[in-house]
Amino acid sequence: MALIVQKYGGSSVGTIDRIRNVAKRLIATQQAGNKVVAVISAMSGVTDKLIALAHEVMDTPPERELDMLVSTGEQQSIALLCMAIADAGFKALSFTGAQAGISTYGSHTRGRIESISPERIMRALDEGYIVVCAGFQGMTPDGEIHTLGRGGSDLSAIAMAAAVKADVCQIYTDVDGVYTCDPRVVKAARKIPELCYDEMLEMASSGSKVMQTRSVELAKKYGVVFEVRNSMNNNPGTIVKEEDKDNPAMESLVVRGISIERNQARVTVSCITSPVPYTALILSALAKAEINIDMIVANTAHDGMARQSFTMNMNELGAAQAALKSVLPQLGPDAKLDTEAGLAKLTVVGVGMRSNSGVAATMFRALADANIPTGMISTSEIRISTTVEIDDIERAARVVHDAFHLEQA
Amino acid sequence: MALIVQKYGGSSVGTIDRIRNVAKRLIATQQAGNKVVAVISAMSGVTDKLIALAHEVMDTPPERELDMLVSTGEQQSIALLCMAIADAGFKALSFTGAQAGISTYGSHTRGRIESISPERIMRALDEGYIVVCAGFQGMTPDGEIHTLGRGGSDLSAIAMAAAVKADVCQIYTDVDGVYTCDPRVVKAARKIPELCYDEMLEMASSGSKVMQTRSVELAKKYGVVFEVRNSMNNNPGTIVKEEDKDNPAMESLVVRGISIERNQARVTVSCITSPVPYTALILSALAKAEINIDMIVANTAHDGMARQSFTMNMNELGAAQAALKSVLPQLGPDAKLDTEAGLAKLTVVGVGMRSNSGVAATMFRALADANIPTGMISTSEIRISTTVEIDDIERAARVVHDAFHLEQA
Repeated sequence: MALIVQKYGGSSVGTIDRIRNVAKRLIATQQAGNKVVAVISAMSGVTDKLIALAHEVMDTPPERELDMLVSTGEQQSIALLCMAIADAGFKALSFTGAQAGISTYGSHTRGRIESISPERIMRALDEGYIVVCAGFQGMTPDGEIHTLGRGGSDLSAIAMAAAVKADVCQIYTDVDGVYTCDPRVVKAARKIPELCYDEMLEMASSGSKVMQTRSVELAKKYGVVFEVRNSMNNNPGTIVKEEDKDNPAMESLVVRGISIERNQARVTVSCITSPVPYTALILSALAKAEINIDMIVANTAHDGMARQSFTMNMNELGAAQAALKSVLPQLGPDAKLDTEAGLAKLTVVGVGMRSNSGVAATMFRALADANIPTGMISTSEIRISTTVEIDDIERAARVVHDAFHLEQA
Repeated sequence: MALIVQKYGGSSVGTIDRIRNVAKRLIATQQAGNKVVAVISAMSGVTDKLIALAHEVMDTPPERELDMLVSTGEQQSIALLCMAIADAGFKALSFTGAQAGISTYGSHTRGRIESISPERIMRALDEGYIVVCAGFQGMTPDGEIHTLGRGGSDLSAIAMAAAVKADVCQIYTDVDGVYTCDPRVVKAARKIPELCYDEMLEMASSGSKVMQTRSVELAKKYGVVFEVRNSMNNNPGTIVKEEDKDNPAMESLVVRGISIERNQARVTVSCITSPVPYTALILSALAKAEINIDMIVANTAHDGMARQSFTMNMNELGAAQAALKSVLPQLGPDAKLDTEAGLAKLTVVGVGMRSNSGVAATMFRALADANIPTGMISTSEIRISTTVEIDDIERAARVVHDAFHLEQA
């Protein structure tokens, strides 16, 4: 008998019919001899409707009251799902985040999970119930309701899987798993059967929208094996787990996947002559303006003047310009800004890169042969990213996908 | 500085505009130098919508899950009300039933309040917050959500007022208070400025729909002074409190008010000859069928045969007949049932009756003079009820109202 946590997002429980479908899946999983914990989101649209109602009252509602309001969305969906299970003749119990023992800290609307006390859930499982927990929410030790922010339900599921020592955590979504590249862009893209946490993290942080990095990080921290699956079929998904260093099959693939991110912009500060520690000055200015920068490239020109470039989401370009303008005078008399919008980012990911040289060469050779100019480049042990013009990004993804033969299983 | 609990029902918070109106009232109460606790219901219609959603899933949803679902209604309204208070520039904190320390026992969908631990609410009041609590809900010591059934929000408000030792509990509704009779029936009806608990109980249990008896009983038990007021104006309402036996003004009024109840039916079992304790037999049969009987009249005819009559809501007549038919053979060989639908009940209430004889005489003289035949009669220390034909009830109310000069302040 295995213990399985299954997470269903808002669109999987978006209508009463879909809730019945989820009920059937949970029952089938239990009937196959497993203990089952479902972690679910609010019915799709409900959270947005509640937020709209709040904004009808005021522009910036107190976040504590937003949490109070929005957390009712999951409370409704867990109750309805348990009813659907009961209607099919099986036993289920619903639990709010607080009842599930999900203890949080941090700020309202972006709480963080401190710990989970799963005693009540374990008891319900032992008594033969299908357990249905509200995702996206928890309670502080003081009894304040928190929601967990974007990707919160995935996070709840992974944390719950860690707490109940689940054999696997299945993240149900509307795609069959993680692909070698977005199939809408690269027709030859294949579902990846298995990834390690670090690869999933790099995929997630570089444009693959399947999961938020915070959930993957949590899974890695607690060694939770999870599988991204499609809630509308029974296809096997993508399993994400600790890298198996003794497994040569996993290592034989140098590049695992390619992700693309549109809406990128670049800001460059050049002619920096200041003797002050200018990198700290620049990064502090951007952090203070709450701008999430992505790639950072710094170099010193032959004339002794330094330049630094950053990429960020295009939406943040204006704010970044404003933040940097204010520190420009401290960077040198001729220090100046230039910016470029309309960029995209192409990233190749694979733990095999660690022990395989030549990945970068293959990638940039393929792009050059296709006459695609590249801009900024950044790398990690298991990733290479480059910016390209937005109009080139789809073609770039295809030629790099081809170059690494990712269409082959 | 007084501590005031204000209860607002679903129609008082039925739209965002009405929620703003309630916010204004709470702020004004606080600005007048009081500490304020609001106890509110779900926005009108929300609870019904949630129940309809549950019934879309199944005919008889598990009551635990119904509570889980329905309790989100108040959780939404308390959050929105706190936002409206914040929007007006004042501090408010919302509390679910569980957070407010409302501890319950009993069954799901009809929980009962065990106790309230108001520490968190007292702390918020001390810190200058307007406190907004969800009515109609609480939590068991095991952490199970309960709703409290019909009239549950009034009950929450009265219990909260007892727990925080409020100076007064104001029950806001859509009428100005308790009237000497239904003003739609008796145009001369007046608002009653003051009632004692027992009078309010008799009024409530004999057709005045302002409050459920369970809330009045709780107020009496804990000596909570409450006032029924209109949420749409600032008129003084009806204050309900302990009978002041030293206050002759209160005693001078023999009859305080008249209530009418339509949709009554009578069942009579006659020709009872059984030697068994037949009253117990009959009442058990009715109780087992969960029929709420109201008036009971029992007598023995000169021939030694007994007869018993009961009144009940007309909706329960069929079930009562069925229940009694099954025990008829045990009551005697000739025992038989007859029934009469289309009745109404007229009740006069007043603690002054205790020390004033002649109330019944005045009442039945007035009815006789108006040629209104009366049927069953029952009395308590402070109440006289009689059945009349449904077509006579309005005229009966008017002539009795006149007879006791209730139109005079």
